[in-house]
Amino acid sequence: MGSTEDLDYPQIILQYNNGFLGSKVMFTACELGVFDLLLESGEPLSLDVIAARLGTSTTGMERLLDACVGLKLLAVELTQEGALYRNTEISNIYLTKSSPKSQHHIMMYYSNTVYLCWHYLTDAVREGRNQYERAFGISSEDPFGAMYRSEEEMLKFLAGQNSVWGICGRDVLAAFDLSPFTRICDLGGGGGALARECVSLYPNCTVTIYDLPKVVQVAKDRFVPPEERRIAFCEGDFFKDPIPEAELYILSKILHDWDDDKCGQLLAKVHKACKPGGGVLLVESLLSEDRSGPVETQLYSMNMLVQTEGKERTPAEYRKLLEAAGFRGVQVKRTGKLYDAVLGRK
Amino acid sequence: MGSTEDLDYPQIILQYNNGFLGSKVMFTACELGVFDLLLESGEPLSLDVIAARLGTSTTGMERLLDACVGLKLLAVELTQEGALYRNTEISNIYLTKSSPKSQHHIMMYYSNTVYLCWHYLTDAVREGRNQYERAFGISSEDPFGAMYRSEEEMLKFLAGQNSVWGICGRDVLAAFDLSPFTRICDLGGGGGALARECVSLYPNCTVTIYDLPKVVQVAKDRFVPPEERRIAFCEGDFFKDPIPEAELYILSKILHDWDDDKCGQLLAKVHKACKPGGGVLLVESLLSEDRSGPVETQLYSMNMLVQTEGKERTPAEYRKLLEAAGFRGVQVKRTGKLYDAVLGRK
Repeated sequence: MGSTEDLDYPQIILQYNNGFLGSKVMFTACELGVFDLLLESGEPLSLDVIAARLGTSTTGMERLLDACVGLKLLAVELTQEGALYRNTEISNIYLTKSSPKSQHHIMMYYSNTVYLCWHYLTDAVREGRNQYERAFGISSEDPFGAMYRSEEEMLKFLAGQNSVWGICGRDVLAAFDLSPFTRICDLGGGGGALARECVSLYPNCTVTIYDLPKVVQVAKDRFVPPEERRIAFCEGDFFKDPIPEAELYILSKILHDWDDDKCGQLLAKVHKACKPGGGVLLVESLLSEDRSGPVETQLYSMNMLVQTEGKERTPAEYRKLLEAAGFRGVQVKRTGKLYDAVLGRK
Repeated sequence: MGSTEDLDYPQIILQYNNGFLGSKVMFTACELGVFDLLLESGEPLSLDVIAARLGTSTTGMERLLDACVGLKLLAVELTQEGALYRNTEISNIYLTKSSPKSQHHIMMYYSNTVYLCWHYLTDAVREGRNQYERAFGISSEDPFGAMYRSEEEMLKFLAGQNSVWGICGRDVLAAFDLSPFTRICDLGGGGGALARECVSLYPNCTVTIYDLPKVVQVAKDRFVPPEERRIAFCEGDFFKDPIPEAELYILSKILHDWDDDKCGQLLAKVHKACKPGGGVLLVESLLSEDRSGPVETQLYSMNMLVQTEGKERTPAEYRKLLEAAGFRGVQVKRTGKLYDAVLGRK
């Protein structure tokens, strides 16, 4: 569409205006299990069957299914018995719970938690801080206290983060050759999906997942199979407690939660614990040096405002933080996906 | 992007996932007055000036401005004094309050009311009804009682609808030659923007805006200048009270609020009041006959579930409603924009 048409009729503005409608249609179809049912059934199903099996109204489900067709998340076939719906290939892979690349859990976290925090974006910009108090009536002083306010919320968050590594994990771990590092510590490793990608890609390494005791407990119980002997656990708060010695520390989506002061404290502690010749791998969504993009990263940086004490940063900002902590030879690799990799050496 | 890449990395799903982030960035920049300030200033401004003038944090405003640059709603220039921000042309036209084509008010309605109702989309689909109770703690029995629950909410809604006609009004009124009709009644004409477009396009007509007494009061006080003598008002509830005789009735975004029964009642009443040789013009967003699109209309039909008792319909569905009420010679014109036109004759 040319710019003249744009100015006569603002397609791009209408698209942004309707963005949240599309988000919620996809989230709701996931939450109600539309894609799971259509995968399991193995054949296209009618509106009446889908609504009955999922226990919803037909008037609501009809519109949900038709909107999913418009979004190309479902396909419809008009037969003599009426309209029959089936998943598109992309929905089978990414929107069903059982798929290895499922994004179901991150969507449930976005739909139920992030969406409501963002209702208060204007307040967040005015005040320059996160919105747990307005959204959930809980203190915003300790973001992870707020995010992990119940076991259910913690599980949703950890499962959501795990699903991100199902599509981005291999790229960030393959950005640099990490095979020289055999003792790896994943600081704030959460549900362990990145650690599992790591031992799969580098079979000679062992990874210690370091996280809060209640996170480690859930990771052991729910996410990391006990027969995976290359993954160990260590409980602690990386701001208060000692961290184990390792050759490589992975800080994946950790620094973006914190301000520069706290990042400096944490990196100094990592540098001290790191074996000489070792290093630190930062996994983050990188802004361009002039901050003009990518737009996804700019939006995620707003989300850091709404939910944490941090922000997304440019490569130069990460380099500065790493060098201030004593790391040298900093290298940056963009993956072309949401998350990128920065390697520093001791 | 080819389908192989799509399947390896689900760009479209990430885009839907992030849709609500983009919506809220645009809404918040509007609400805080970023585009108004940059229009009024007449020159690019720095972050510090913008944050100070709008009374916000700099840490929040910096990210908001950068995200608007990523969305192409602002442009940034890096100068010796630092980054300077200015509106893009599309923002000057559509996102400033003072522009004749301003979409500011509809965005404020979407951001503060529609967004929160949509948080309960899953419940709406399960139950098949609107979500005023969950979103605002008010009864969902009477949608317009809920929408007009305070003068402030009513004003936001009416101003929002008015801004829609600033970009779509002329097209729906020019879809058919309405010059033969000189006495026109705009049923549920709300804030009057469509009536004003009508007397501008057809200078020989007079338009009576028929709406609830409190709506008429606001339209007179706020939206329709008293010197506009071609526009008159009539107070009433079109389901309960008599409606005035006219040659043409406009029902603009009225039938989509109601189920088929209520639409039938209303159209029968219109047919009875209509002068022989007169007609009725429906202004609605039309689904395709096979319901496969347009996606905007499918999303708006979901919104009718979340907010009203109605839905968006296909041309055949409107034809059936019109013919059941006695109208003949039904013609349909798609405008290529959000709202289309259907004309029936008595």
